[in-house]
Amino acid sequence: MVQPALTIASLLRDPLLREACGQWLREGRYELMDLGEEADPGAVLEERWDGFDAILLEQGLLSGETLRRLWSLGLVLPTVILGPVTGQLDFHAAEVHLAKDQLPQLSYSLDAAISRFLRRGQVAEPETASEAGIPQKWKFSDRLKERLGYLGVFYKRDPNRFFRNLSAPERGTLLQSLERTYRDLLISYFRDPAAANQALESFVNTVFFSDIPVTKTVEIHMDLIDEFWNLLKFKGRKNDFLRDYRLALMDVLAHLCEMYRRSLPPEPFFEKIEAVSGFTAARQEMC
Amino acid sequence: MVQPALTIASLLRDPLLREACGQWLREGRYELMDLGEEADPGAVLEERWDGFDAILLEQGLLSGETLRRLWSLGLVLPTVILGPVTGQLDFHAAEVHLAKDQLPQLSYSLDAAISRFLRRGQVAEPETASEAGIPQKWKFSDRLKERLGYLGVFYKRDPNRFFRNLSAPERGTLLQSLERTYRDLLISYFRDPAAANQALESFVNTVFFSDIPVTKTVEIHMDLIDEFWNLLKFKGRKNDFLRDYRLALMDVLAHLCEMYRRSLPPEPFFEKIEAVSGFTAARQEMC
Repeated sequence: MVQPALTIASLLRDPLLREACGQWLREGRYELMDLGEEADPGAVLEERWDGFDAILLEQGLLSGETLRRLWSLGLVLPTVILGPVTGQLDFHAAEVHLAKDQLPQLSYSLDAAISRFLRRGQVAEPETASEAGIPQKWKFSDRLKERLGYLGVFYKRDPNRFFRNLSAPERGTLLQSLERTYRDLLISYFRDPAAANQALESFVNTVFFSDIPVTKTVEIHMDLIDEFWNLLKFKGRKNDFLRDYRLALMDVLAHLCEMYRRSLPPEPFFEKIEAVSGFTAARQEMC
Repeated sequence: MVQPALTIASLLRDPLLREACGQWLREGRYELMDLGEEADPGAVLEERWDGFDAILLEQGLLSGETLRRLWSLGLVLPTVILGPVTGQLDFHAAEVHLAKDQLPQLSYSLDAAISRFLRRGQVAEPETASEAGIPQKWKFSDRLKERLGYLGVFYKRDPNRFFRNLSAPERGTLLQSLERTYRDLLISYFRDPAAANQALESFVNTVFFSDIPVTKTVEIHMDLIDEFWNLLKFKGRKNDFLRDYRLALMDVLAHLCEMYRRSLPPEPFFEKIEAVSGFTAARQEMC
């Protein structure tokens, strides 16, 4: 069953960035609609927003005023913001941030943006929705549920982009990008919690959507700590404090674990499915 | 849809233990068949094994010789062994150990024993099956799949026994038991890795099958470390090494995470289900 393409409003000014994003999303289920060269991209987005499933936004392309206007009109969508990962929120609470040089993780970030958006929308009560950065007006769930199918919140992962199904060079590139994100996370972990948190989320999103085994995450952590250790030893500096970085790994594992936990379909889902006639045949075929 | 009862061969000698197990499994989907008072319980098990779905065994009730005989005949079943958690394997590689005073976790341990058994059986190739402690002869998957339904390895969790669905006193009892298991894990973590590993598995099984949020696990860890810290301070002893116990929490989180990861149904599962006519109706109803 072929998945429908997701239509992404692309708001990128930098031509190189635009080309690179196009390359990284060339396969799979994305269709990019380029609004980056419009004279007033915010106005075009406002006018055509119901033709889009998600937004890819270069930080700074839309003014804070424009974003607030869209937000207040209820015109929010799942959003990936490309730019420095500082921990700052630009548009709404379910947005996902990715550094411009980490595009190998772009498709996973888009998956994460959609999944977070759907989940947050489902969880939020009307009175807490606006606190959570989602206006009450917008009927996100009806719209996206319809396109994305089954249960809405349980946004499907794409097995073609699972780590084990990538080519060897693709795997290498993705790992390198993940290491870079993990390094950002460690570096900001104690001195800039908000930035660390966005790096953590980016890392966890990619690990989840690429279905990377947990041991690989532990390996990335250990390799980086070893590297820091050697560097400090070489410089004759104390390195006891490196043990505190274990807190960062725990944090990552706890987030990842909770993400998996919440992605398990609820048990009644299976029971209802079993009750549907014809299901037994499908099950037999799969077993 | 009512789940079929699982028939458990109960091989317990101690009458108090027998009664307590009966109490802890009184509700839900278990039917205990008492073989503990038979003159030769091993022989009865051998004769009637195809009437059972799992075994509940008091350590020492069957001799090593009897267990080896059952194993060599291919008469293995998902097994929970009640007794000291030492890390020793008694019967086969998918057995689950639980301390006799941790019966609040018994039903989750049985779930874990069945799930581990099915998973291991699916994964093991014929030539590695016997290395993994599962004889090649026994057709575990055909048998249990038939009773347990959907996909076999994705053994259903029982929402009635989810932590959030327990009564307040039940929640308290379960938490207390989990804390005790976690304490065992910490105490043996550096000095007896095999015992620590069985405690870890027991803890992770219960957390998974009772769907406890990850934050609760982190809380249990912190509370215990605080308690150790205060105790050592009171005694005027050094307590720096307590930081090393973070390794135990990481280990637990990594195991739990991997357990959740492997429990996500494969994506094609949903696609095939969607292809089955009538599924849309079921989905609508759930959304």
